[in-house]
Amino acid sequence: MLMENPLFHELKKHLSEIKSIEAVMMLLVWDQQVYLPNGGAVARSRQLAVQAQLAHEKLTAPIIGKLLDDLQSYQINLPYDSDEAGLLRVTRRLYEKAVKVPPAFKARLSAHLSKSYQVWTLARPANDFAAVQPYLEKTLSLSREYAHFFPDYALIADPLIDFKDTGMTVAAIRPFFAELRRQLVPMIKDIREQPLPDNSCLYRTFPTAAQLSFVREVIKNIGFDFERGRQDLSPHPFESLISIGDVRMTTRVQENDLSQTFLDTLHEMGHALYDQGLYPDFEGTPLADSASASVTESQARLWENVIGRSRYFWNYYYPKLQAIFQEQLNSTSLETFYRAINKVQPSLIRIDADEMSYDLHVILRFDFELQLLEGTLAVRDLPEAYRERFKADFGITPPDNRDGVLQDVHWFDGVIGGQFQSYTIGNILSVQFYEAALREHPEILDEIAHGEFSALHNWLKEHIYRHGRKYTTMELIQRVTGKSLTIEPYIRYLRTKYGELYNL
Amino acid sequence: MLMENPLFHELKKHLSEIKSIEAVMMLLVWDQQVYLPNGGAVARSRQLAVQAQLAHEKLTAPIIGKLLDDLQSYQINLPYDSDEAGLLRVTRRLYEKAVKVPPAFKARLSAHLSKSYQVWTLARPANDFAAVQPYLEKTLSLSREYAHFFPDYALIADPLIDFKDTGMTVAAIRPFFAELRRQLVPMIKDIREQPLPDNSCLYRTFPTAAQLSFVREVIKNIGFDFERGRQDLSPHPFESLISIGDVRMTTRVQENDLSQTFLDTLHEMGHALYDQGLYPDFEGTPLADSASASVTESQARLWENVIGRSRYFWNYYYPKLQAIFQEQLNSTSLETFYRAINKVQPSLIRIDADEMSYDLHVILRFDFELQLLEGTLAVRDLPEAYRERFKADFGITPPDNRDGVLQDVHWFDGVIGGQFQSYTIGNILSVQFYEAALREHPEILDEIAHGEFSALHNWLKEHIYRHGRKYTTMELIQRVTGKSLTIEPYIRYLRTKYGELYNL
Repeated sequence: MLMENPLFHELKKHLSEIKSIEAVMMLLVWDQQVYLPNGGAVARSRQLAVQAQLAHEKLTAPIIGKLLDDLQSYQINLPYDSDEAGLLRVTRRLYEKAVKVPPAFKARLSAHLSKSYQVWTLARPANDFAAVQPYLEKTLSLSREYAHFFPDYALIADPLIDFKDTGMTVAAIRPFFAELRRQLVPMIKDIREQPLPDNSCLYRTFPTAAQLSFVREVIKNIGFDFERGRQDLSPHPFESLISIGDVRMTTRVQENDLSQTFLDTLHEMGHALYDQGLYPDFEGTPLADSASASVTESQARLWENVIGRSRYFWNYYYPKLQAIFQEQLNSTSLETFYRAINKVQPSLIRIDADEMSYDLHVILRFDFELQLLEGTLAVRDLPEAYRERFKADFGITPPDNRDGVLQDVHWFDGVIGGQFQSYTIGNILSVQFYEAALREHPEILDEIAHGEFSALHNWLKEHIYRHGRKYTTMELIQRVTGKSLTIEPYIRYLRTKYGELYNL
Repeated sequence: MLMENPLFHELKKHLSEIKSIEAVMMLLVWDQQVYLPNGGAVARSRQLAVQAQLAHEKLTAPIIGKLLDDLQSYQINLPYDSDEAGLLRVTRRLYEKAVKVPPAFKARLSAHLSKSYQVWTLARPANDFAAVQPYLEKTLSLSREYAHFFPDYALIADPLIDFKDTGMTVAAIRPFFAELRRQLVPMIKDIREQPLPDNSCLYRTFPTAAQLSFVREVIKNIGFDFERGRQDLSPHPFESLISIGDVRMTTRVQENDLSQTFLDTLHEMGHALYDQGLYPDFEGTPLADSASASVTESQARLWENVIGRSRYFWNYYYPKLQAIFQEQLNSTSLETFYRAINKVQPSLIRIDADEMSYDLHVILRFDFELQLLEGTLAVRDLPEAYRERFKADFGITPPDNRDGVLQDVHWFDGVIGGQFQSYTIGNILSVQFYEAALREHPEILDEIAHGEFSALHNWLKEHIYRHGRKYTTMELIQRVTGKSLTIEPYIRYLRTKYGELYNL
């Protein structure tokens, strides 16, 4: 990054300004979720709107396009893997995307979504699909309009998917999702026919301070750097990259739900380790970010599920947990605890779903997004379609729309299209990456069983974190695993783990 | 504010954008002092610099000048006291000030001050005046250069004073300061000849949590609105107006210094009540601010000293304090406690000074600023001049420069000129305003003695807070008290209070 091509240098100055404004937006949102007093909400929206406008103006300024054009002859001679080439590729992509969408459209979309969100917050508790239907219809039509600004697509969902996962398309994803569903549905059916494991040990009373001190100990030991980050409490856990040296995660503690606090924390820590591990020289450039929504999700799910629900992990940590919660866990064996945190029981609600059935919620939404965009499913038919599909996949019928089609905020505060796929691609990748790490460092398993995480953490830093946004998801998968995206490791992982747990 | 002159409306749109950026800067600084992890410091400086640059560009944009010019015929027909007229006056003033100073000069000044500050942080502990001398000399020359951008002054310090206290001048302030010094020096000399009251009751061990819960109770009862503000901990207490509904104060708890925690908190609360009491319609305009540095200081000192060190106040609160700290205060009477928090003992350090001798520190600095700017005192002669003046005023000679001329950060991270007067004008005003309130509501004293603050708080809201920055300091004093600035009430207050305490 230190070559002093003067145009490149000038471009970086502009990018650094844009990144600073984006960092400010991250802080404004973090503060809004964590510390903002109620009285500051209206002014906060305005502060965010002003910064968003400034960032947009700076990114779409003609000088950016001119510098990118003028740098083409420089770019062509750079090695593909160089940071400079990566920065120019990513900047070009962001610039092209930003200039293609007229500000007036963005304003119209955002005004509509803000109304739509308001209506949804009332309609969901009232179980009132009719109230949101006209809003969803307008959202669908605006989503199509949005996609049309990027006319070179094979399927209309592609540009919307591309916003979160550059280079991903329906054609690339659909076969994996179909195969995963084909495997999961009968497995879940088999599991449902067996007696439920007793997970009551997770729902005793676990005081907040003790839970917090336990999770802080764990994330510190795994490698979260409190000198370059924070952990705070918030009603909804999230993670926020303000700068590479200022990465903030939040935790929600539920006194009567031990695993929720713990697994949520490992999830956000997964995002946070990624951001803390970005190459420091990327600061002030768009490379200082995760590769994509799917890749950062894979890092969250790796720690939350693959590690955080594993026997290896609890082999070391369960005695420590028992020591803290003697009264509550004294009579609960490691095996009982392990089975409790891996209990499979289809839930009506996606975000409460177990590891096994979670993807079916996602694939359902992904399929519906395509059908809605393609016009093969009408908004008014959504509730019925949701019920049918849910019955087919999970074996249960949602009793109402509140806990059925109305449950997810995504279509009410965002477009229809591209909203869900990253959750499941993230799951698939979490295992594909983990297998690659284990191939190279088989000692990882033994380390984890002894509360050591450096082999895995270092491997992730070296192969994933440090590259930031330099490579697309597909490029990164190829580099890291030597293969393209594959679902085999994930299915093998689920089959092995739950086969053993449920004698499948 | 609701008249829809379209030019006025357009001006307000620009001002709202500027105010939003300024609010973001306040949040960035608040976060930096309260929650920023070490690793985020470098990026934070850049974030602040980008926002400062944006705010400056927006305020000095030609459109602002044009709108102000085009609005002159509209402005001339507005009543002077109308919010619109106030907004146009204040905006014109801010705009004129901003455009007169070339950005290159500001950059030069700020680069120099940042070096000067670094040098000072090492030189002060090393007692090394020679190290800072060349930096101070350059600061002095830059301070003169700064003043020259505003050539219509009587004395060169005037424009620098005007930055913090619009309309204030050396000519207006100097006679008050001279008179105050003439009165204070012999009073302090008399007090020094008497035995020191025993204030050891303040320096026992008072656990942090109990101190915090006490001060929170007090500020809540006085009227700090936690729905529209926050209180956090920070190494240096400060207050921050992010928006009228988001006013944040910080507290530093010292376990072995009860009065410090308490009085610091009341001080910041005084600033905070002011900001929470701004007229809500001023949000998004430069009127949403205190009238001046002096007026906001008067509000801080009113609660910290005039109320917070009074018999009336502790008549109600001392039994409550004793109930919390039974072991520590059981054997300490109210009278002993009252005398302890009002102990007069000249200190080498301004910020540790008692209520009585504090102003002498300020007047000394104010006089030196004038002499330095006027060229009647050379930077190299400062240490000796400081020692002589200190001896004359306080009767003691500072043993070194560290706790003498090097003690205050102001000349090392800011210009020389205008840095100190607001502290003493604030003290003078705290009593002038309080007397006006008491004239109108004599019941205030009795209320305070019963832990009630609404008569005083409401009077302050109505007469001071709600007007924000609409009036200059002098205008506000005239409106609130029916008189111009006068020092009599303040001197009478000090003479009565300390005359009784020390049998003067």
